[in-house]
Amino acid sequence: MSAATLFSVENAFAQQKKQMVRFAKIQVDPSQIEQYNAALKEQMTTAVRVEPGVLTYYAVADKNDPSRITILEIYADTSAYKAHIETPHFKKYKVTVQNMVKSLELVDVDLISKAVKPN
Amino acid sequence: MSAATLFSVENAFAQQKKQMVRFAKIQVDPSQIEQYNAALKEQMTTAVRVEPGVLTYYAVADKNDPSRITILEIYADTSAYKAHIETPHFKKYKVTVQNMVKSLELVDVDLISKAVKPN
Repeated sequence: MSAATLFSVENAFAQQKKQMVRFAKIQVDPSQIEQYNAALKEQMTTAVRVEPGVLTYYAVADKNDPSRITILEIYADTSAYKAHIETPHFKKYKVTVQNMVKSLELVDVDLISKAVKPN
Repeated sequence: MSAATLFSVENAFAQQKKQMVRFAKIQVDPSQIEQYNAALKEQMTTAVRVEPGVLTYYAVADKNDPSRITILEIYADTSAYKAHIETPHFKKYKVTVQNMVKSLELVDVDLISKAVKPN
């Protein structure tokens, strides 16, 4: 392994160690699921498109209860997250969903490993 | 939008509707976390590399309790999952971790939306 390759591997590892990874567990008003999901999708896709430090969102709903939503969120670091919550698209999302969300639990996690098929 | 593009978009949507998406919530023996994580990583990376229908794994651990692990799993469809659990690498994983896993809860979910930054 060349010195340059070694540096690159270590650098990638350091990048990943700094990442902020989290679950947001959201109970949505069952009568407003479609509106909530539309607002969430707009927020997610905009953030990943325009913010360099917003890396990944997966939003899923329990099959047995689609009003129970979990979002896996990955930011480059905590600074990227702090910048994210000040953006117009995030603030618009928060205002839009304020009467749709019954509860919100945030759980900080560490990424152990990921494996994703190339597209 | 051309007819070919329209078909491609509809086809992608149909593919996604068939996907099997799930959380596996695992309580690991706190004295065997490193061994468990190594076995999990080997299983995940092998499955995504060699099985056409194993699409995505993200494994995370609670920051407050690294023995509490959650895996987001995405398979192309239920047939891909059924084939997966018959593979040698999956069976090897199950045998390796049988005395490391204290409990396992499987939660079926539907993907609402995802947004992932291109590498």
